[in-house]
Amino acid sequence: MSSILDSDPEEFRRAGHEAIDWIADFLTSIDRRPVLSRWSPGEVGRTFSSTPSEEGRSYGSLLEDFRSRILPGVTHWNHPAFFAYFAITGSQAGILGELLSAALNVNGMVWRSSPVATELETHVLEWLRGALGLPEGLFGIINDTASINTFLALAAAREATGLEIRAEGMSGRTLPQLRVYCSDQAHSSVEKAALALGFGVRGVTKIASDAGFSLDAGHLAAAIENDQRSGVIPCAVVGTAGTTSTSSFDPIAEMGEIARAAGAWLHVDAAYAGSAMLDPTHRHFWRGVESADSLVVNPHKWLFTQVDCSVLFTRRPDVLRETFSLVPEYLRTPEPVTNYMDYGLQLGRRFRALKLWMVLEHYGLTRLRQTISQHIDFAKRLAESLLARDDVELLAPQRMSVVVFRKLVRSEDGRVDEAASERKTEALLERMNQSGEVFVSHTRLRGTYGIRVAIGNGATTWEHVARILAFV
Amino acid sequence: MSSILDSDPEEFRRAGHEAIDWIADFLTSIDRRPVLSRWSPGEVGRTFSSTPSEEGRSYGSLLEDFRSRILPGVTHWNHPAFFAYFAITGSQAGILGELLSAALNVNGMVWRSSPVATELETHVLEWLRGALGLPEGLFGIINDTASINTFLALAAAREATGLEIRAEGMSGRTLPQLRVYCSDQAHSSVEKAALALGFGVRGVTKIASDAGFSLDAGHLAAAIENDQRSGVIPCAVVGTAGTTSTSSFDPIAEMGEIARAAGAWLHVDAAYAGSAMLDPTHRHFWRGVESADSLVVNPHKWLFTQVDCSVLFTRRPDVLRETFSLVPEYLRTPEPVTNYMDYGLQLGRRFRALKLWMVLEHYGLTRLRQTISQHIDFAKRLAESLLARDDVELLAPQRMSVVVFRKLVRSEDGRVDEAASERKTEALLERMNQSGEVFVSHTRLRGTYGIRVAIGNGATTWEHVARILAFV
Repeated sequence: MSSILDSDPEEFRRAGHEAIDWIADFLTSIDRRPVLSRWSPGEVGRTFSSTPSEEGRSYGSLLEDFRSRILPGVTHWNHPAFFAYFAITGSQAGILGELLSAALNVNGMVWRSSPVATELETHVLEWLRGALGLPEGLFGIINDTASINTFLALAAAREATGLEIRAEGMSGRTLPQLRVYCSDQAHSSVEKAALALGFGVRGVTKIASDAGFSLDAGHLAAAIENDQRSGVIPCAVVGTAGTTSTSSFDPIAEMGEIARAAGAWLHVDAAYAGSAMLDPTHRHFWRGVESADSLVVNPHKWLFTQVDCSVLFTRRPDVLRETFSLVPEYLRTPEPVTNYMDYGLQLGRRFRALKLWMVLEHYGLTRLRQTISQHIDFAKRLAESLLARDDVELLAPQRMSVVVFRKLVRSEDGRVDEAASERKTEALLERMNQSGEVFVSHTRLRGTYGIRVAIGNGATTWEHVARILAFV
Repeated sequence: MSSILDSDPEEFRRAGHEAIDWIADFLTSIDRRPVLSRWSPGEVGRTFSSTPSEEGRSYGSLLEDFRSRILPGVTHWNHPAFFAYFAITGSQAGILGELLSAALNVNGMVWRSSPVATELETHVLEWLRGALGLPEGLFGIINDTASINTFLALAAAREATGLEIRAEGMSGRTLPQLRVYCSDQAHSSVEKAALALGFGVRGVTKIASDAGFSLDAGHLAAAIENDQRSGVIPCAVVGTAGTTSTSSFDPIAEMGEIARAAGAWLHVDAAYAGSAMLDPTHRHFWRGVESADSLVVNPHKWLFTQVDCSVLFTRRPDVLRETFSLVPEYLRTPEPVTNYMDYGLQLGRRFRALKLWMVLEHYGLTRLRQTISQHIDFAKRLAESLLARDDVELLAPQRMSVVVFRKLVRSEDGRVDEAASERKTEALLERMNQSGEVFVSHTRLRGTYGIRVAIGNGATTWEHVARILAFV
C-alpha cells in the first residue's frame, strides 16, 4: 500500500526547485523591497479564507500565495538596510543548513535518537569556543534563544545555592530572600527569567550603570554587601558584554571577583557581541570572561546563522544537570554519552548544529571576521559622520556595530529643547522607516529618546548605511 | 562596495538545487537505509577536523561531507519504519515551509517585526482550533516544544493563585505549599516544568493511574481534599490526552470539575493525540477539554509538521500575559496588536506558522484525517496480530497509534517467568533495532518492561508495521 500523505515525490522536487530559484532571486533583489512591511493590522484576516482547505492545494498555488499575500506582510530581517533590534543575520549557508535539517527532521534529545546531532553539536561548539578565545574545558549546548539560556543559567545558580530548590521547592517553607543582580542596561530576558524562576521583581536588583552605560562595579559591591547584612543570599550576577541599547560592556573581571567573594554565580550575556570575539583585538572588552560560570553567545545574532541558534557555555555542567535531569523509562539508553536533554528544560531538540557547521565551514573564520570587522567600521564611520553635524548628538559612545543618536533642537538661548528634540528625532525615525529604504529602532537612555542603528547583515555595504545620513 | 559574505548568489542557487534533488532522492530511498544509526560514540571526534576552516569550503564539498560523514550518524526519524518515541513526523510540505521560513529569517517577537508572522500564527491556529472541535474564543500561540508550553501553563497557574509570585517572588517570605497534580503516566516535562518553577519534587503529586493507565479521578479528589486540609494550595491539575507510554486518556471532564472546585488551573497535555481530534469520532476521548484553562497540541508530533511546532491554546491569555509581559523601551511599538513575546519566556520567535500553513493547506483536512486514521488502523491490526500469539502479551489496551507488548516466557508450571520474559523482550528489541529495518523504543508499566510501538510517519504502510511481526 502506498503512502497517502506524500504520494508524488516529483511534486516536491519541482516545488523545491521553484522555491530555491525564488529564494536566489529574492536574495539578489531584496534591496528593491521596503524593509519595514507596510501592512496595517488585520490584513491576514481580510485576505485568507476562514477555514483551511478540505481537499488540499498544489504547491504552485501555495507558492503564489506566499509571494502575493504573505511577502507584503514581511519585515525584511534579511534586508541589507535592516538596522533595527539586532539584525538576526542569516546567510545563504544558513538557509541550506536549515533545509537539510528540515529534511532529516531529527530530535536530538538523547545521543541515540541521532548520534550525529549530539556529537556535531559538541564538536562545533568546541570549534566556536576555541575561535572565540574561551578557556578549554567548557561545556557547550545549543538552545533556541538567549532568553532560554539565561533562564537555564539562573536556574543552575538557584540550585547552586545549596538550598535544595529542586527537591524541596520554594513554597511551604521559608527561604531567605534570593537575589539576582544586573545592570539597568541588561536585557529584559534577565528579568523575565528571574520572574519565571520565582525570584520576583523584588528579587532582581538593577545596578545603575555609569556614564558609558557599563555597570558600576562599586555600586554592585555595595548593593551585595548591604543585602548580605540583611540576610539576602546573592544568587547570581549577570554581566552583559554588548548591551542591547548601546553595546556597552560591563566590567566582567571585577564582577567575577565580586560574585566569587559573595558565593554568587556569574552569568555573562554576550548574545550579540560575543561573535565579535572571533577577532582577538576585541577580547579586552570582555576581559575576565574566563571567570564566568556561564556565558551565552547567539550565532543567530551576529554569526550569520539562521534563527534559532543560541549557545550556552558553562564550566559547571554538573549543576545544570542536577537542576534539570529527569529521565523517564522510555528515554533511558545504555550508552555512556551526553544526552543533551539532561541539561535543559526542553526535551525536543532540533538539529541546529548542522547550520552552524555549514556557516563556519563554508565562510571560514577569516571571512566571518572580515564581515564583522566591516560592520564595526561602518558603525564607526556613521558615528563620525553624525558627530560632524551640528544638530546631531550621539547618546552613547559607538561600540561594536551600534550607534545611538538624536536630532537636537535648540531654543533661542542656545540650550537644547528636550521636548522638541524628542519630537524631531521621533519624526525622523518615522520618516526613515516609512520610506522603506531603511529600518531602524529606538531606545531611551536615561530618559532621552534616541534612534538606534545596529549593523549586522552580511549583505550590508556602506551605501546602505549612508542612507541613514541622507535622512538625518 | 559589494557584500563580502555571500558574494555569489549563483553558488547558492546551484547548491540549493543540488540539495533539493538530494532530498527528493533521499525521501524516496530512505527505506533502504537503517532506521537506527549504527555509530558508536565518538565518531565525529574521530573524523572531523579539530578546528573549523580558516579560508572556507565550497558547498559542493560540504554537501559531500553531509552525505558521507553526517548521514551515517543520523537516526532516521523520517523513516517509515521509525516507531520509537513519538515519530516527529515531518512531511514534504513541512520541508518547504521551513525552507521559505529560513529564507525570510524573521523574528516575530512583536507584530511590527513581521506583521504576517504574528497574523498568520493567529489565523492558522484559529483554523486548527476549529478543525479540532475546540470551543471558540481560545487564544493560540506557537512555541517550540510541549515542554515550554506546559511550563508556560504552570507559570500562569502559579500566578493565578493570587499570591503575587511575579511581584514578590517565592523567597524571603513564607508561602503555603503549592502543588501540581498529574497522573503517574504524565510526561516528564510536567515535572521538569514544575521543578523549574520552584514547586520542587515535593510540590508534584503523581496520582496513581487505573488498570487502563488513566488517572483515577477518585484518587485525585482525595489527594486534593487531604492536601487542602493541611493548608496546601492546589495550584494546577494536569491531565493527559494520549500518554507517552500507552496513549491512555485521563478523565478530563472529571478532572476539570475537581480542579474548578479546588480553584486550580486545568492544563491538558494533548501533545501527541490532540492531532487525532481532527476526526470527530475520537473526540469522546478528551471529553471535557472545553473546561481546560490551557491545552497543548504538537503539530510536530502527529500533524506532519517539521520540528519544532507546539501549540498552546488558552482561554486565559490575560494571566499568561500578566505572568510574562515585560516590554523594554526598544521593543515598544505603537500598534494596538498582539505582540506574541508578551505571552511567553522566549523573545526570539521563528516564523513557524508558515510551515503549519503549508501543511494544512497542501494536504487539506481530508488527507490529514485519512493518514492519521490509517495509523490507528495499523496499530489496531498490529495489536490484533500480536494478541493472536501465545507468547505475546499486550501490556496496555491499544489506543490511537500506540501498541505496547512483551514476549512471555513460561516456566514449566505454566506461570509467567517475569525475569526471563524481560530478558527475552529486551533481546527482541535489540534484535529489531540492530537490524536497521525498524526502530522501536521501550517503556516500563508498573515495573514490567515492554516494547513500545508508535506509528506516525506519513510514508508508513502496513508492510513497514508488519516487519515488527516478522521479528516477534
